[in-house]
Amino acid sequence: MDTQELYSRGVAVRKQIFGAEAVDKRMGALGEFGAPLQGLINTYGYGDVWSRPGLERKIRSLVVIGMNAAINRAAEFKVHVNGALNNGCTPEEIREVCLMVALYAGIPAANDAHRIALETIRERGIKA
Amino acid sequence: MDTQELYSRGVAVRKQIFGAEAVDKRMGALGEFGAPLQGLINTYGYGDVWSRPGLERKIRSLVVIGMNAAINRAAEFKVHVNGALNNGCTPEEIREVCLMVALYAGIPAANDAHRIALETIRERGIKA
Amino acid sequence: MDTQELYSRGVAVRKQIFGAEAVDKRMGALGEFGAPLQGLINTYGYGDVWSRPGLERKIRSLVVIGMNAAINRAAEFKVHVNGALNNGCTPEEIREVCLMVALYAGIPAANDAHRIALETIRERGIKA
Amino acid sequence: MDTQELYSRGVAVRKQIFGAEAVDKRMGALGEFGAPLQGLINTYGYGDVWSRPGLERKIRSLVVIGMNAAINRAAEFKVHVNGALNNGCTPEEIREVCLMVALYAGIPAANDAHRIALETIRERGIKA
Amino acid sequence: MDTQELYSRGVAVRKQIFGAEAVDKRMGALGEFGAPLQGLINTYGYGDVWSRPGLERKIRSLVVIGMNAAINRAAEFKVHVNGALNNGCTPEEIREVCLMVALYAGIPAANDAHRIALETIRERGIKA
Amino acid sequence: MDTQELYSRGVAVRKQIFGAEAVDKRMGALGEFGAPLQGLINTYGYGDVWSRPGLERKIRSLVVIGMNAAINRAAEFKVHVNGALNNGCTPEEIREVCLMVALYAGIPAANDAHRIALETIRERGIKA
Repeated sequence: MDTQELYSRGVAVRKQIFGAEAVDKRMGALGEFGAPLQGLINTYGYGDVWSRPGLERKIRSLVVIGMNAAINRAAEFKVHVNGALNNGCTPEEIREVCLMVALYAGIPAANDAHRIALETIRERGIKA
Repeated sequence: MDTQELYSRGVAVRKQIFGAEAVDKRMGALGEFGAPLQGLINTYGYGDVWSRPGLERKIRSLVVIGMNAAINRAAEFKVHVNGALNNGCTPEEIREVCLMVALYAGIPAANDAHRIALETIRERGIKA
Repeated sequence: MDTQELYSRGVAVRKQIFGAEAVDKRMGALGEFGAPLQGLINTYGYGDVWSRPGLERKIRSLVVIGMNAAINRAAEFKVHVNGALNNGCTPEEIREVCLMVALYAGIPAANDAHRIALETIRERGIKA
Repeated sequence: MDTQELYSRGVAVRKQIFGAEAVDKRMGALGEFGAPLQGLINTYGYGDVWSRPGLERKIRSLVVIGMNAAINRAAEFKVHVNGALNNGCTPEEIREVCLMVALYAGIPAANDAHRIALETIRERGIKA
Repeated sequence: MDTQELYSRGVAVRKQIFGAEAVDKRMGALGEFGAPLQGLINTYGYGDVWSRPGLERKIRSLVVIGMNAAINRAAEFKVHVNGALNNGCTPEEIREVCLMVALYAGIPAANDAHRIALETIRERGIKA
Repeated sequence: MDTQELYSRGVAVRKQIFGAEAVDKRMGALGEFGAPLQGLINTYGYGDVWSRPGLERKIRSLVVIGMNAAINRAAEFKVHVNGALNNGCTPEEIREVCLMVALYAGIPAANDAHRIALETIRERGIKA
């Protein structure tokens, strides 16, 4: 497959998960400087890995939330809480993942995860 | 609920996930020295969090695999690959999680995860 | 012991360490969404582990400060600097732990730890 | 060599890399409380390791940027992006290091690195 | 560019860095299970990022060594010490990076890095 | 103070903590290649930080054990469990630190810490 097709497929998948406006904003945020990274994210991240069969998108979101909470990447965690909600995850499922974080990455990681997850859920106007 | 009941429920859940023999072996491995930690794991880990509704056990396994791969805990990762297989995850689903690790925690983490996951799957006599 | 008793004991211990107001505020901050995590923290964190004999509370505080500095959890680090001061640790002892962080987790971790520790000590009106 | 000479050499090297004003500000920021850490940084960090032959300063800067991005130390990362520019690294070279971060520490680490690097480069009035 | 061309270019670059035999061995080690990850590594890692102009390959190797030492990935660290030697880095330059690790990721990380680096250098029959 | 005096003081302190034989073995293990790192460890680590008043050596050991367990440095953790025992820490105190690790860095970190701590304690012929 041509990398340009892969890139386009990735942008489409990414917009399905996060919304067109959010993706356009993120893709443009760092201009020329960020273009090569956006290329990697779209082509390989969303055009390739996220487009693979074998694991439903909703589960991918929950796994990504758990990983980002564990490795302490707050900004990425927040982005993927939004993605998880768009992929059909419930606030309860997201909260359960945050509780698993307490067991495997510790209470400080779980505290940060709960705080950001709830803030993000409420920004969406979802009661939780 | 009495903590002893919670402990017993945790041991039962843990044995459903990993098998009675494996759990008995792990619970006894560090004797008196490890008893308080085993108490925490059984009571709070399996008796409480893993026993909660709101997220199916199979998804919990995949999230835990992703987290342990990302935070570089090889022994725990291996234990939970076995648990994931017992919880009905397929080798393909486990592999997809390991590919997500490449995106969010990097290629070195994904290399370690793939190696240990395949080794564990094959030890089970599963073709992959 | 009943988990409710353990929970109550944990809340009492937690309030001894951080003050009733601070604990009430933290326990309520995330409402229903955070309740299960607060349950884990109170029951297992403070009702169980922190309530164990075998290591004095002041030393537990210094160990927790060192761990949180090393794993880069700024919010938890700040909470436990306050706890350490309440547990009778001196600013000098806290500073010595932050210097140990430089050796074992590196200078960037030590810079963050020193900055937050001093800020927290000064918020308490303690000269340092 | 006397540690005081080492300290002085370190301060001189540090000021060559970051500028006298920035270094004076950082050295004084935490007063007495931070003095022992500043002593370690100047004597051992800059007076010893950074003063060693065997690796050019520009390469040291790029390695430090990569390490701090990978271990999630944003403040230190920003400081060393400024140092890298002073040591003759180009915005392109810094960006290439940030892309390497995506491969070895993951996309969330690379996103944070790109954002802070570009912000820092632009604060210097450098077009990128 | 077609992803197959990118893949082929990546394999070629990878073999220049690590040697054909080592790469063939690694590419085949996990069979079908590891094929998608090898695809990511070859296409995006070596065909794309490592093939970019803007940073010389030797510096990329030193940055990757520093990052892997800091994030505690021993297997990947060892692979890239070999790559660094093939890319023209001297044992002294590799050692200097390992000393920078002490400053930014701590002495435990530096101890592991020095041990593995020297072992790898000696396996090559290089005196150090 | 002359750095050579600081180095000598550091070697003396280090030998008090770990024993002369163990220190001589570690100092010589990496020959010329490791000499600059050993210089940093002896001069700054033990001659400076570990020699500071303000925190008793026994507490420093327990903090270092907690930090190394949290950041996943098994070799350094083991070295400092031996040091802690030499500094008068009891197996019970070391075990309590390992239980704190479960709360703040997660169960996988606590499992590794308990396993290595008990193995090390038993190698000393201490019943636990």
